[in-house]
Parts: sequence; structure tokens; C-alpha cells
Amino acid sequence: MNLEQMGQAARAAAYTLAETSTRAKNQALLVMADALEAAAADILAANGKDLDAARESGTGESMLDRLMLNPARIKAIADDVRNVVSLPDPVGSELDSRVLENGMRLSRRRVPLGVVGVIYEARPNVTIDIAALCLKTGNASILRGGRETFHTNQELVKVIRQALAASQLPPGCVQYISEPGREWVSGLLKLDRYVDMIIPRGGPGLHQLCKEQATIPVIIGGFGIGHVFVDDSADLVRAIEVVDNAKTHRPSVCNAIDTLLVHQAAAAEFLPLLSARMAEKGVELVAETEALKLLNAGPARVRAAVEGDFDTEWLGLTLGVKIVTGVDEALAHLREHNASHSDAILTSSLSSAERFINGAPSAAVYVNASTRFTDGAQFGLGAEVAVSTQKLHARGPMGLEELTSYKWIGQADYLIRD
Amino acid sequence: MNLEQMGQAARAAAYTLAETSTRAKNQALLVMADALEAAAADILAANGKDLDAARESGTGESMLDRLMLNPARIKAIADDVRNVVSLPDPVGSELDSRVLENGMRLSRRRVPLGVVGVIYEARPNVTIDIAALCLKTGNASILRGGRETFHTNQELVKVIRQALAASQLPPGCVQYISEPGREWVSGLLKLDRYVDMIIPRGGPGLHQLCKEQATIPVIIGGFGIGHVFVDDSADLVRAIEVVDNAKTHRPSVCNAIDTLLVHQAAAAEFLPLLSARMAEKGVELVAETEALKLLNAGPARVRAAVEGDFDTEWLGLTLGVKIVTGVDEALAHLREHNASHSDAILTSSLSSAERFINGAPSAAVYVNASTRFTDGAQFGLGAEVAVSTQKLHARGPMGLEELTSYKWIGQADYLIRD
Repeated sequence: MNLEQMGQAARAAAYTLAETSTRAKNQALLVMADALEAAAADILAANGKDLDAARESGTGESMLDRLMLNPARIKAIADDVRNVVSLPDPVGSELDSRVLENGMRLSRRRVPLGVVGVIYEARPNVTIDIAALCLKTGNASILRGGRETFHTNQELVKVIRQALAASQLPPGCVQYISEPGREWVSGLLKLDRYVDMIIPRGGPGLHQLCKEQATIPVIIGGFGIGHVFVDDSADLVRAIEVVDNAKTHRPSVCNAIDTLLVHQAAAAEFLPLLSARMAEKGVELVAETEALKLLNAGPARVRAAVEGDFDTEWLGLTLGVKIVTGVDEALAHLREHNASHSDAILTSSLSSAERFINGAPSAAVYVNASTRFTDGAQFGLGAEVAVSTQKLHARGPMGLEELTSYKWIGQADYLIRD
Repeated sequence: MNLEQMGQAARAAAYTLAETSTRAKNQALLVMADALEAAAADILAANGKDLDAARESGTGESMLDRLMLNPARIKAIADDVRNVVSLPDPVGSELDSRVLENGMRLSRRRVPLGVVGVIYEARPNVTIDIAALCLKTGNASILRGGRETFHTNQELVKVIRQALAASQLPPGCVQYISEPGREWVSGLLKLDRYVDMIIPRGGPGLHQLCKEQATIPVIIGGFGIGHVFVDDSADLVRAIEVVDNAKTHRPSVCNAIDTLLVHQAAAAEFLPLLSARMAEKGVELVAETEALKLLNAGPARVRAAVEGDFDTEWLGLTLGVKIVTGVDEALAHLREHNASHSDAILTSSLSSAERFINGAPSAAVYVNASTRFTDGAQFGLGAEVAVSTQKLHARGPMGLEELTSYKWIGQADYLIRD
């Protein structure tokens, strides 16, 4: 099939899905979960081919681990699908409903978006994950996975197709672009006649490509420099725990912090504590001049910050450190250095907290908590479609509701406008 | 100023506006409304120049009327600004708030989008209108009006600047791109570092341009073929009134209908009634074969439909007519022919109504009402920013709330993630 045909099939399937009951959608998901586990041997064999190819091309251990499936991981993916079954279906609920002066009952009813295009890299679980979330919300999906998981995805898509067929749902509900070549990605990004939303799940390069080429609305997300600001009124002993958690709990993810800002009145006391803890955790500090003076005496490795360091998402055991005069300079730093994901203030001051909440340009702002909480599961959304760092449609972790739109419904008795 | 500088100024102003109180924003709007009326003579003189230029270049009467201001219209624009003052400020309200199991209070708080870019054609009232709506919601705006209203817009922008200065708000709150040249539009559409949303207000060409060139989320809207489907169970006498209203109340606008679909069981009775009324109103009918047979005998002008007629937004006194076998064929027709704005069913059948509501791909779906109600004022939104026909962020008439985003706020007691 070419893209035009895939678009048509997806659009037709979306109309079917929009009128499919929650029970029928859940049934298809349960079949999919069971079929996944039943096909484990085939999936693992295919995954083995992908892993061999990756090893041959010299892929590093951490990336290999991302690609790798095993029986426990397949079980976990199947269980994630079962979890989606247990979530409430947002489709059909009314956002609001009122009677206008002219007697018309006017409501907004939640409806599926229609067709969702998803472009992703590496991790094979995304294939099942996104297919399940879209199906649950009545959206058809067109998926394009990375080359690295080509064989694995072929098997996963086979399972999805079986589940759709067994549930009398059209194959257009979930389609996968198997053909190699950038032109398929570019084509998908311009399929605005059929596709309502594009979700890129990958690195900044992929997001930039989507932003530049898409004629379809794109959900941009997953990036941004993360900051913790330690105010002078913070409990410095407990602050160390939060900074440690925000930096080292899982350093490779987007809600880990990149930069620590410290109030000048707290720096002399706090930075030695910081150096001790960071030395213990193997974190290298990258400090501006004033902070460097205080950190040089400590046990942690430290180097002077250079141009661009405070604009770098480290995704590892590195932490920028800067002393600021207070919450205003902290906010100015955030605004200057691409804060858009998750940022925190540690403070006892009500006014500092409120200033920071209002002024931080971030999707998620924390007071006395780690930035690591920005996550669909942590926020109780039940599932996470993506983490948006743009401001339209959805911001921060996106759950099932963010895969829906609404329509206005006006009901009256042969009412005309005067 | 170049676009980069305008973007920086807008971003800085947006931070100020986000922390400006509702009272201060309202005060600036009141000053703007008064300043508009005070500057009426200058505005009208400038508008005279635009009208002269338009007449010289052979602009038609209806377009001249769109360009034309007079004292009453200036008063109306000022009153619209005063109306915006009276609306509630959505910024700062919480969408939801809950305490997670770990003790974190997690809320979503409404915040301004940031910087809104608006590209529009003709009507000079848009300049004030959009500037006021953005200011009210704490958004900075960058405006780009049409060449046709160049002189008028210069004067209107002068008024806006005065009002901002008098209210101690930075001039970056509302900026206007005066320079001619397409490259300014293209540049604005790619200013994603500073601009959060683009609203095009103009014809399909402008929307297409924005869709193709923008790297910023765009609100597409204002188009779509409008339909009324007359079911066999409809009250045919009253149905004529609704069809008449939907077609002729204001034929040039986007919520007027283009196509009438009639159930085959009602056609023999309904089409003669239709022909009589349409003849009276000077509407030409464009009918497919079966409908044509029944309409040829009537008094209304009628011609056979040709390829593309049912995909045409008439914006005038023309109406497509087609006989269908029932609600399913009506829905199939809507889906095939770009229904995305406003569509209605006239019926007494509960099941037909529900089928149509769920199945129509439109932003606004009506049961026994005219499509003419799709309008911010009619819907009680107080103001209309645009009418979206896309599904992300906002659909249908957009009010003040649709000029906002939200941020997640997590508050706790030095909470870390395990």
C-alpha cells in the first residue's frame, strides 16, 4: 500500500472505531495482550535478529538493552495493555452542557481525534503501547518504528493484526509503515488529508524534522533543560535529598535535572553538602565562577562552565551549578536556558514559591519536590502517550484524554437564527 | 526591528503580561477603547486613503464595505473592547487539583499561551479585536494585517501603543509587522523560538500557506462544506424554515450551508416546497440526477450538478441538492465531501439524531437547528478568536479559554521519587 491508501484505510477505520463500543475495544485489547504472550517465541526470535544486527553495527550496551526483549518484558508489555483495558474510556463523555437563552441545548462531547501518526525510535514496546492507547480512545494509528527494531516490529504488528481480525475490527485501525526510506516519513508528515495528529517519540532531531516538515499538528515534547533552585529559606539538609533524587535517580531521562541554581545566601552552606553527595554518586559538577570557588574545595569532580553548558541536557552524571541572587534571577536563568519540561524550587517562603510557580516557563513546576515526578503514571493518568513541552492541546504528561478532541452538539426544535 | 527582535520583545512582554493582574489588563483595555474613539478622525482619514487605493485598483463593493470604517463602526469596535473587559479572565483558574497517594498536591493551572501570531486579511477591526483578546488573556501578540488596510492599521496600532504606554505595559505586548513582503509572513511562521501559536484569519490560501510553512502550531479553521440532511421523519414545513435560514440568512459566511441532502422517502414532498422557497429567495439549485427530476418542475432555477459541485463552498445564493437513502448515506456524503465545520440533521427520530451526532465529522453538529449558530457570540463565549476546524487544542468557536494553556503544579514536603 502507498501512503494515500494507508491514509484512506485509516480514515475509514477511524469512522468505524468512533462508533465501536468500549466493550468491543477492550475485548480487542485483551485478545492483543493474550496473543502477545502466545507469540513470545516468534517475537523473541525476531528480536534476536535485530540484536545481532545492532551488535554487528557496533551499538553500545545501553542501546542494546533498550532494544532487547525477553519473556519478562513481553509479559510486562502485555500487562500494560491489560492496564489500558482497565482505564476509563474518555470517548463520549460531555465536557459541558447548557441551555442557551434561545432554548438550544449546547454540549461539548469528547470524540476520538481520528487518525494519529506516530514516529518513534528504538524501543519496541512503543509499537504495542501506542497501538493500544489509540485503539482504546477510538483512534486509528499509522506507526513508523525505527530500523533498529525492524524484525521485532514485524512480529508485533502481526500480533496486532491478529487481534484486530479476531475482534472484527478493520486492519486499517493500526497500520505500520515497514518500507525503509526517509520519504515515507516525509510523506506521512504531509498526509494532512487523513491524519489529525503526529506524535514523534525520539530525540530532538526527530522532533525538529517533524516541526519543519509536517503540515499536520505535531506534539513536540520530551526535552528541556531541567532545574532545581535552592532558595535561601530551604531546609538545606533535606534539599540535598531532592537534588540528589532529581539528578541521579535516573540520569538518562528527560525529567532529570541538568542545572542547580543556588541562592547566594545559601551557597556557602549548601555547596559543600552538594559536593560531598555528588562525589559519592559520581556526578561531575560544571560550575560558573562564583560556584566554582566554593566547589573547588569539595570532594566532587568539578570544572568551570563554558559557553553552552547551561543549555545542555546532560542525560548523564553531570550537573551545572550556578549561584543566583534570588528567585528573580533564577527565573531569568530558566527563561534564558530553555526550561520547558520540569523545574523545581526548594523553599520555605510562600512568596518565593508563588513567584516561581507563576514565573517558570515549564510544563511542570514543583515546590519542594523532585522533578522526577513528571510522568503519566506518577501523575495518575494510568498511561502516558507522550510528554508535551508545547503549549497547544496538551502540556506535560499526556494521558488518554489528550488523545481525544470534542465536538459541539446543538439540539433544538427547528430553531433558526434571527 | 527585525523578526528576531520582535520575537524577543514579544517573549519578554509575555512574561510581564503573565504576571499582570486582571485589573491592570482591564484598565489598559478601557484606555484602548477610549483612545480609539478619541482618535476617530485620524483613523477615518487613514481609512479614506485605504478606500481610495482599493477603489483605484478596482476592488468590488462588498470588499470595499469590509474595509470601510465610519464613526459608528469605530464606536462598535471600542464597545467590543469594553465587552472583553467585562468577560471573566481565564488565567489563574485551576482545571483540577488532587492529592496523590504520596502526598503531593497536583494541580493544573491555566496560564497564557505566551506569544500569539495572527495573520489576517482585509477587515481592520481584527487588529483591535485580536489585540484586545490576547491582552485580556495575558498573551503578547504579533500582528500582520492585509495590505488593503495598511493606513488604517497604522493608526489603530498607534492607538494600541498609546494605551499600552499609558498603562505601563511594554510595547512588546502588541506588535505589528508593517513592512510589505511575503518574507515577513514566512519568517513569522518559522519564529518557533518565540511564538507559541499562529492564527490565520483569511481564505483557504492563507490557511494552506500557514499549514505548509509554519514550524509553529497553527489553528486551521473557517472552512468546510456545510450540510443539512432532511430525514424522512422531519417536519417538512418547519424544515423549510431551517434550510432557508441556513442558506440565505447570511450566504457569504462559513456557517451557511452548501448542500442539502434529502431522504428519498421525503424528496417528492419536500423538493417542491424547497423549489418554491428558493425561487422566492433567488437561490439557484445544483442537483444530482434524481433530485433534478423532481426540481425541474419547480419555480427555482436549477442545473445539473457536475464533478466538484458538492465540494464547493458557494459563499453565495447557490445550493447543492442530493437525494440519499437515509442517514448512513448522508454521513457517507459528509465524510466524502469535507464536512468539518457545521452540519445539521432535521428529524423526529431519536436513533437518526444520535447516529448523525456521532457520525458527522463536523466541529458543530445540530439536531433540528440551523447551522448559522456556530459562532462565539451565539454560543455564549463572549468573544470569538477564530473558528477551528482542526481537532487539536480547540474545535469550533474559540473563546478566551482557548487562548490559554495550563501548567502542572506539584507541591509537597521535600518529596523524592523512590
